[in-house]
Amino acid sequence: MAFDLYIVTDEAVGLGRSHIDLARMALQGGADVIQLRDKKMPSRQLYQVASGIRALTLDAGALFIVNDRVDIALASMADGVHLGQQDLAVAEARRIAPPGFIIGCSVGTPQEAVLAETAGADYIALSPIFPTTSKDDAGNGHGLATLRSIRSVSSLPLVAIGGINKGNVAPVIAAGADGVAVISAVLGTEDVASAAADLREAICMAKRDQYPEC
Amino acid sequence: MAFDLYIVTDEAVGLGRSHIDLARMALQGGADVIQLRDKKMPSRQLYQVASGIRALTLDAGALFIVNDRVDIALASMADGVHLGQQDLAVAEARRIAPPGFIIGCSVGTPQEAVLAETAGADYIALSPIFPTTSKDDAGNGHGLATLRSIRSVSSLPLVAIGGINKGNVAPVIAAGADGVAVISAVLGTEDVASAAADLREAICMAKRDQYPEC
Ligand code: NI
Repeated sequence: MAFDLYIVTDEAVGLGRSHIDLARMALQGGADVIQLRDKKMPSRQLYQVASGIRALTLDAGALFIVNDRVDIALASMADGVHLGQQDLAVAEARRIAPPGFIIGCSVGTPQEAVLAETAGADYIALSPIFPTTSKDDAGNGHGLATLRSIRSVSSLPLVAIGGINKGNVAPVIAAGADGVAVISAVLGTEDVASAAADLREAICMAKRDQYPEC
Repeated sequence: MAFDLYIVTDEAVGLGRSHIDLARMALQGGADVIQLRDKKMPSRQLYQVASGIRALTLDAGALFIVNDRVDIALASMADGVHLGQQDLAVAEARRIAPPGFIIGCSVGTPQEAVLAETAGADYIALSPIFPTTSKDDAGNGHGLATLRSIRSVSSLPLVAIGGINKGNVAPVIAAGADGVAVISAVLGTEDVASAAADLREAICMAKRDQYPEC
């Protein structure tokens, strides 16, 4: 599983474009993971959107993750679900998911990272690492020191989210992130595909500096 | 499965009492089914409430159904899910549910009833039969004639919901409903257990008139 560039769709910052259009453009720019996040859309419509993004991600060879809704993830044959601290707990989601279903979990502290790993998470996301206004539940950033602490206690794939852009991604990778999740830095631009490609290039450069053997 | 008295919990009409308290009182009054319905509660909290109502309904020998959220229903070991026309479609829910999982579906016309039955619904609910203000998605009532039409095209257990109370339940049963679902007629009263018991008695009386052989 590659988590280098992980895009969380959010129609609120997408300049009027739909989840499916945003996902298509992000995939054109090389996104490795698309997460569908919509806390307000009725279930039937969310399922239809999820099915559309599932088809696009299969074509692109990218992962597809649904935020919060395990049922929508299962019904749309997504690769997995992403769970925040207000969503179903990892252990409960694991109980109702089939083998191989990816479960990601937002964490804010090393303790939460250890709990998520023990409960069976497949990857963790430090959220938010920097201050951001994209997510309605985001607050102050936890910072690079927290990212390093989490890296030191967990070997799970670790994604950082919140306020990251191509200008500040290098220290995030250097602090141990396997990948970077963004919302507005990519979706809030006119040319989403270019913004995604630029950020992905910056992530790759930072990884090359960090892991010269790769 | 007995659907005689089917209570849909709604904290908005419950005079400040919680879903769990409302369910407990309704079960004391003899409710056969409790449906947990909350479109706004975060998933983790909804799961905790569902688990609480699951325990109460098991003690009471009543069915427990979760509105909309198949994942919360599965995680809390509910008996099933109830799907509105904006929720996941019956066929999709059936695909991700284990054998024996009950799927109910709201319908407004005989055509929708036939579609629900074909898709694999275990019961159907005519919603709303009479005008009501309890449910945010409720409109004008479909009326007794629609109930009769649906009865004539489907042999599934048929529940009527919307504006029903002990004073008007007899014609609803006479028109072919197997049971009656209510929200405010029971939950909007001070003594929920008594209101539930009174309504259940009215349903039983109406059924005795309708089916004297029982
Ligand atoms: Ni935090």
